[in-house]
Amino acid sequence: MSGPGRAGVSGGAPVDVAVVGAGLAGLTAARALVATGRSVVVLEARDRVGGRTLNHDLGDGQVVEAGGQFVGPTQNHVLGLAAELGIATYPTWNEGAGVYVHRGRARRFTGDIPPDPLAVPGLGLAMLRMNQLARQVPIDAPWRARSAARWDAQTFATWLRRVTAGTGGLDLVDVFLGSAYGGSAAEASLLFSLHYIAGMGDEHHPGTIERGIGVAGGAQESRFVGGSQRLSTIMAEQLDGRVVLGAPVHAIDQDARSVTVHCGAGSWTARRAVVAVPPALAARITWSPRLPPPQDALFGRLTFGMLMKCEAVYDEPFWRADGLSGQGVFRSGGALCSTFDNTPPSGAPGVLMGFLGGRAWRTWAPRPARDRRDAVLRDFAQVTGRAALRPRAYVEQDWTAEEWTRGGPTAVAPPGALADLGPWRDRPFDRVHWAGAEHANYWNGYLDGAVRSGTDAARAVAALAD
Amino acid sequence: MSGPGRAGVSGGAPVDVAVVGAGLAGLTAARALVATGRSVVVLEARDRVGGRTLNHDLGDGQVVEAGGQFVGPTQNHVLGLAAELGIATYPTWNEGAGVYVHRGRARRFTGDIPPDPLAVPGLGLAMLRMNQLARQVPIDAPWRARSAARWDAQTFATWLRRVTAGTGGLDLVDVFLGSAYGGSAAEASLLFSLHYIAGMGDEHHPGTIERGIGVAGGAQESRFVGGSQRLSTIMAEQLDGRVVLGAPVHAIDQDARSVTVHCGAGSWTARRAVVAVPPALAARITWSPRLPPPQDALFGRLTFGMLMKCEAVYDEPFWRADGLSGQGVFRSGGALCSTFDNTPPSGAPGVLMGFLGGRAWRTWAPRPARDRRDAVLRDFAQVTGRAALRPRAYVEQDWTAEEWTRGGPTAVAPPGALADLGPWRDRPFDRVHWAGAEHANYWNGYLDGAVRSGTDAARAVAALAD
Repeated sequence: MSGPGRAGVSGGAPVDVAVVGAGLAGLTAARALVATGRSVVVLEARDRVGGRTLNHDLGDGQVVEAGGQFVGPTQNHVLGLAAELGIATYPTWNEGAGVYVHRGRARRFTGDIPPDPLAVPGLGLAMLRMNQLARQVPIDAPWRARSAARWDAQTFATWLRRVTAGTGGLDLVDVFLGSAYGGSAAEASLLFSLHYIAGMGDEHHPGTIERGIGVAGGAQESRFVGGSQRLSTIMAEQLDGRVVLGAPVHAIDQDARSVTVHCGAGSWTARRAVVAVPPALAARITWSPRLPPPQDALFGRLTFGMLMKCEAVYDEPFWRADGLSGQGVFRSGGALCSTFDNTPPSGAPGVLMGFLGGRAWRTWAPRPARDRRDAVLRDFAQVTGRAALRPRAYVEQDWTAEEWTRGGPTAVAPPGALADLGPWRDRPFDRVHWAGAEHANYWNGYLDGAVRSGTDAARAVAALAD
Repeated sequence: MSGPGRAGVSGGAPVDVAVVGAGLAGLTAARALVATGRSVVVLEARDRVGGRTLNHDLGDGQVVEAGGQFVGPTQNHVLGLAAELGIATYPTWNEGAGVYVHRGRARRFTGDIPPDPLAVPGLGLAMLRMNQLARQVPIDAPWRARSAARWDAQTFATWLRRVTAGTGGLDLVDVFLGSAYGGSAAEASLLFSLHYIAGMGDEHHPGTIERGIGVAGGAQESRFVGGSQRLSTIMAEQLDGRVVLGAPVHAIDQDARSVTVHCGAGSWTARRAVVAVPPALAARITWSPRLPPPQDALFGRLTFGMLMKCEAVYDEPFWRADGLSGQGVFRSGGALCSTFDNTPPSGAPGVLMGFLGGRAWRTWAPRPARDRRDAVLRDFAQVTGRAALRPRAYVEQDWTAEEWTRGGPTAVAPPGALADLGPWRDRPFDRVHWAGAEHANYWNGYLDGAVRSGTDAARAVAALAD
C-alpha cells in the first residue's frame, strides 16, 4: 500500500466515483465504495487528509488535537470505524472539580452543571423544554414539524430568553454553543437548534442536550489514542494511492452520462461524484449546469461558525494534584468559552485546551497574537492556578483562517432557511451526491455525523444501476 | 466615444483604479474617478452593463424593466445622476383603486394601506414603533445602537409578532419584504431591519417605513424614461472604451504597491481597486492575501434575497378604464406578493408587473414555467379582471438564476451578523475599496444606495495620496 500522492498529473483515468474532499466523510464514502468494487479517486485541496481533524505533534510520538477530538455514547458510526481501523479510545480526564468563572469570580464545582444559583433553575427548565420540543422534530425531515414555520422564524436566543426569563440560562447555553456552533444562540434558528438536539442520540436513544454537553455519558466522554486525525490517515493509507492531495476542485461539469471534476492538476471523469466539503465551499465551486438556485441559496445560508482552539503545554498536568479537572466554564469575562484537560493518555506533558469561539472569536481573533495568548493563559490560570501562565509551548489553531474550511466547527442555519429550503440539503444534484458533517441528521456537525454522511452517500451511490 | 468592448486582450496597461462590476455602483465610481483625472478600467462579468437593472424591449422603441426600476423622494443621488445624464422621470401609474387579496377574496382600496380591519391597527402600531426605534439606530454605525446586541439577537418577525399580537400585521409587512428583501421578516435581523428603515430617507429627512412602502411620496413614486438601465448604458458610453464586458474577475492579488485583478481575458494592475459586486460574490473571489476572516464571514452572511419579476403585456392598460390602479397586495394565496401597472409613459402597450419573492419564490421557482405563468396570470386577473388571463406576451426574470447576481433584489443580514461584524462591511481591504447597494447606509439595497456607495468609494480613493 502507498499513502496519498501529490497532484502532478493532468488528471487521471475515468473512475466510477470521484470524491471531493478527504475529510472523514469523503474518506468514509471512498472506503465503502471501494469495498463494493468501485474504482474511486479522492481529490483533496490540502496537502493532508483529515479535514477538520488535525493532530499536532507534541514530540516523543505524542499528539494533541487542533481540531475535532471528542467521542461519546451513541456515536456508533465513528466508534465502529475506529474499531475497524484498530484505533482505541480512552476517557477524557474528568476527575476533580471544574471551575466556573463569572464576573471575575472563579468557583469550583462538580458535574456538568455550573454552580450559579440564579441561572441554574432557568437553565434546567430550558433543557427540559428543549428536549421535549426536540422530540417533536422529525429527525429526517425537520421542516415537517408541526411548528416548523414558527420555530424557524425565531432565533434560539429569542426562545431561550423567554424560557429562562433573563436569569442567565441563555449565557450558559452560549458557553456550549461557543464551541458546538462556533457561534451563539443569537445566530441560530430555533428549528435548526431543536433538530441539532434531536440528533444528539441515535435511532434507539432520543437526542438530549445533556448528552451534547456532558463529559461522562456525553459527547465529550472519550478521545482517540493517537489523535482523531488517525481515522483519516489510516483510511487514506488503505485507499492505496487513490487519494490525490493539493488538488482543490474549482469546477464540476456533468451531463447525462458522466461528471467531470476539475482542479488545477487536471480533470477526472466519473459516473458519479460525492462532494464532501462544507456546503458554503460547495457553493463556491463553478457548477455546469449551475446548482439548482434553492440548493445554492441553502448552501450559502449554512454559515460556518468561527472557532479557534488554544492549547498550552506544561511539563505535567499540575492541576490534577490540586483536585482540579482542568474543565472551566466562562459565563463572562473570558476570551475562552470553556477549557479541558487535553493531556495525552501517558499523563505527560500536561496540556490545557480552550475553545475560543463565537462572539469571543469576533472580539479576539482580530487582536494581536500576543494579546490573545496572554488573555488565554490568564483564563487557563483562573481554572488551574498561576502556574498556567508559563507554559513550555502555546499553540493556536484558527479554523476561520483555513482556506479550505473557512470556519469551525460546523455550519449553522440562521432563521428562515431550514423550514423552506431544508429538503435541498441532501438532495443529489443529478450525478452528484453530498456528504460531510453538515449532511447528517444524527450528530450533525460532529465526527460521527461526518462518518454517517459518508456511509449514507456511499450507500446511495452503490444502489444506483451505473 | 465608443461603447463598452468585449474582452479579447490579455489584460491591459496599468491603471490608477480597476473597478470590478459595471452596475450602477461601479460605473458611478468609475465616472467620478475619471472626472478627477484617474485612469480607470471597469471589468464586467456579463455581456452587458447595469447589474440588477435590465431593460426589456417591448418593440417600437419602448421598454419595461426586468430589474430595479422605481425612484422616489430623498433618493437624491440617483435622481441627481439621472439629471446629469439627461434622463427624465415620470410618475408611476397611481390612479384608481388598488386590490387587496386575502383568503380568496379581492377587495378594492385606495392609498397605501390595505383594507383589513383586523390587521391594520396592529400594522399601524408596528409602523409607528419601527419608525421610533429606527431613529435610535446611528445611521453610519448601527452596531452602536444602545440595544444593538438585543435587536440583533432576534428576527424582525419575532418583534413584529409581539407588536402586532398575531393580528396579521406581520403578513402585511411580509408582502413588502417579499419585494424589498426578496425574503421575509423571519430571515432578517431586527437590527438590520431598523437600520434599513432608518436609511429610507436622507441626511435631512429621517427614514420612515411609509416612505419605503409608498407610491405617492414614497420609494415607488417615479420611474425613468427609457428604463432604469439607461443610467448605466449612458455612463458606460461616457466611459469611452474603459468598460470591458465578458470579464468575470476570479482572483485579486495585492501587495504594498499595487493590486492585480485577474479574469479569464487577462489581468489588470492598478494602484487601487473598487469592488462593486454583491458581498456574497466578492467572498467567492480568490483573494491573495485572503480576505480578513471577519470580513469574509460577514460577506458570506449577507445573504441575497430570492426574487423574480413577472410581466404580462396587453394591447392596452384595460384596467384603467375600470377605475383600477393595477396595484395589488396579496396577503395570502398569491404566487405574487404585489403588482403594479408598468405601462410605459406613452400609455400602450399595457403592462402588469408582479413581484414573486421570498417564501413564494421558494414555492414557485422550482415548479414548471407553465404552471407558474398560469398562477401569475390568475393573480393579475384578481387585481384587474379576467382579461388579464390572455396577455400578448409574458416575461419572467428570475434573479436567482443570474450567475453574476445569484439573487435579488439585495442582501439581508440574518441575526447575529451586524452587531459584531458590521464594522467590516465597508472597511477597505488594503488597496481594495467596496461599493454596491449593500454598502450604503441610506437606501441600502436600492438604486440610490448603489449610486451613493459608488460616489463614496470614489471619494475615498481620490482622497488617497497615490
